[in-house]
Amino acid sequence: MQEKLKYLNSSQVAGFLARVRREKPLIHHITNYVTANDCANITLHTGGLPVMAHAFDEVEEMVEAARTLVLNIGTLQPDQVAAMIKAGKKANRLGIPVLLDPVGAGATKLRTESARKILSEVKVSVVKGNYAEIAILAGTEAEIRGVDAAGTVEDIDRIAREFAAARDVTVVVTGVTDIVTDGRTGYKISNGHELMGTITGTGCMAGSVIGCFLALQDSPVHEAAAALICYGIAGEIAAGRADVYGPASFRTAFFDSLYNLQEKQISRMAKFAAY
Amino acid sequence: MQEKLKYLNSSQVAGFLARVRREKPLIHHITNYVTANDCANITLHTGGLPVMAHAFDEVEEMVEAARTLVLNIGTLQPDQVAAMIKAGKKANRLGIPVLLDPVGAGATKLRTESARKILSEVKVSVVKGNYAEIAILAGTEAEIRGVDAAGTVEDIDRIAREFAAARDVTVVVTGVTDIVTDGRTGYKISNGHELMGTITGTGCMAGSVIGCFLALQDSPVHEAAAALICYGIAGEIAAGRADVYGPASFRTAFFDSLYNLQEKQISRMAKFAAY
Amino acid sequence: MQEKLKYLNSSQVAGFLARVRREKPLIHHITNYVTANDCANITLHTGGLPVMAHAFDEVEEMVEAARTLVLNIGTLQPDQVAAMIKAGKKANRLGIPVLLDPVGAGATKLRTESARKILSEVKVSVVKGNYAEIAILAGTEAEIRGVDAAGTVEDIDRIAREFAAARDVTVVVTGVTDIVTDGRTGYKISNGHELMGTITGTGCMAGSVIGCFLALQDSPVHEAAAALICYGIAGEIAAGRADVYGPASFRTAFFDSLYNLQEKQISRMAKFAAY
Repeated sequence: MQEKLKYLNSSQVAGFLARVRREKPLIHHITNYVTANDCANITLHTGGLPVMAHAFDEVEEMVEAARTLVLNIGTLQPDQVAAMIKAGKKANRLGIPVLLDPVGAGATKLRTESARKILSEVKVSVVKGNYAEIAILAGTEAEIRGVDAAGTVEDIDRIAREFAAARDVTVVVTGVTDIVTDGRTGYKISNGHELMGTITGTGCMAGSVIGCFLALQDSPVHEAAAALICYGIAGEIAAGRADVYGPASFRTAFFDSLYNLQEKQISRMAKFAAY
Repeated sequence: MQEKLKYLNSSQVAGFLARVRREKPLIHHITNYVTANDCANITLHTGGLPVMAHAFDEVEEMVEAARTLVLNIGTLQPDQVAAMIKAGKKANRLGIPVLLDPVGAGATKLRTESARKILSEVKVSVVKGNYAEIAILAGTEAEIRGVDAAGTVEDIDRIAREFAAARDVTVVVTGVTDIVTDGRTGYKISNGHELMGTITGTGCMAGSVIGCFLALQDSPVHEAAAALICYGIAGEIAAGRADVYGPASFRTAFFDSLYNLQEKQISRMAKFAAY
Repeated sequence: MQEKLKYLNSSQVAGFLARVRREKPLIHHITNYVTANDCANITLHTGGLPVMAHAFDEVEEMVEAARTLVLNIGTLQPDQVAAMIKAGKKANRLGIPVLLDPVGAGATKLRTESARKILSEVKVSVVKGNYAEIAILAGTEAEIRGVDAAGTVEDIDRIAREFAAARDVTVVVTGVTDIVTDGRTGYKISNGHELMGTITGTGCMAGSVIGCFLALQDSPVHEAAAALICYGIAGEIAAGRADVYGPASFRTAFFDSLYNLQEKQISRMAKFAAY
């Protein structure tokens, strides 16, 4: 499905990755305790430097040293929302990009409302979720529940674009096909492998990898797409290894493959289309 | 030690596992931050879907979507107990099974009293612990401390059965020989491998795997026994692999082996006896 | 750079490790949620038994059962400081060694001040940090920032010795060359491998390994040096394995190598000098 692209091509993807590795941006996470270790490791393997700090009293200072702020509500406590908003507003004043991963939005009121509150009080560069999370935040819950599997990609694509345009945010919807859109430009990405769904944290880690690319302050829609292309290709390379027997050996190979990812692998394996 | 069994046989064990894989039950954990990632992964590898959510304001809603509630006090804070009880009562009203892992009961008053409080306010289907934890909850601390190693299995077996009968709960005691009893029916399970003791979280993860099987709502004593048989066999398979050199490569192989566990492996390797 | 040593030689290093494995000391951690799982595992692989407990109401009781207390401020919340000081004072009364890892001191006021508060209220046996963290605690921030890379080891060595002497504490500075000093005796350790910097938690885990050795209550400066020698050698062995392709397979091999570390490997590979 590779097409002639308007903006992004595979050598630009590799170029972004090379810059991350060279610049080693500090990525400040306020995130959940389930996948925090995975997020720290994937940040290192992508080329960034992770720091996790969530205390209300220190998040502003920490964000000053960072180049991206990643907010993930995976194991939310109500008092964390205030720290996230405080950190987010500071990032906004400093011109540091903010990524929001609204984990579980739609599953509980606390999560839905917390995600909405963050979105309304902080200027978020990228909001990244699965189909259900994005649909909820876009306010189209009813619609998305009614569609069948065949119709989903087109529907979520439209929902994501409208949401992105209305909120002036880049929207990333992860799934078998990933969608990245800022309401005008957009990408559909087909990289990835089903083994990525057999380990926990692949969603959260995608947020960290996108966070590394956002630190470059090029264009969020292109950076997010490039990050997901690299991430998906690493998954495909890992899945093809002879010493992968299941989810845990896949996980090891996946981390190694992202760390070792080469430009020629990106140019040969990238599967994405702009629209 | 395989005997003619009253209720459970190895093809039923395999049948339970097949159902978990087919039904993919959502397992709501309120658990510790040390092994949360392991518990999420093992839930996925068993066939379930993990969710970790501990905020007082959302646990009731989350439990509504779940098929089992797993409560683990491994890194307890006093305010978590209220959330656990709230979630547990909601699970009780909805008929959703609850598993309690009283990690460290006996080590500190906070843990002993919290475990007792949960047991007294929530109808727990399965309480799972090691010898010391179960003995403490059964109120027989003095007794268990006096026994020597040779006498332990018989003593703990009796303690577990009496505790189970008195509290109308299925009791699981993990050790070299695992004991599962509801006070009437019971199993002794000899599957497992000593390498399982060289990594952290094998106790917590056993709780998650049992949680997946409890979601089937057959019979807790049979489900818990079946879960531990699968879990122990996966450990034995992993320990026998040629690429296992120590605890960390064992851990990888263990996760992979559980994910790949086949009916024929279960029927060939299951080592358990009913009584 | 092996020299004739005043106190420690490689067979004493191996002797310490053998004692840890034989005595299996309980190591009480009050630590961060990012690397808690790694710290628990590395404690087991070194030969100790980990317990993580941070609730204000239980830390004193838990420390009573432990042989070392490890305090790590990696994901600090202000209320944790009180629990750390309470546990530390109890450890002091009981003669149990305390290790402090001031993660991120210098990065935020909360961390710098918390680390200082712990150091002033608790008698700490070992404070372990990277160059920046130790320099900040030693009050020589300005100086360390001015030095270039070539001058760093000598400067930090002097800073560490003065800090150790002034505070009567063993200071461990981790880096390409590790420095361990109590102000009089000291070691420079060259073991380790650059792949250790590609995974998260190698600093925190070093604290756990040192914690295991401190439990022996020999001499903190020798125990800390011995721990880091073993830790670094395990890293070198892992890096040399044929099945290591990147950070994640290195991590697996590193854990396995520490678990399997033999006296003959220590005597052949130890690279340290006393002064």
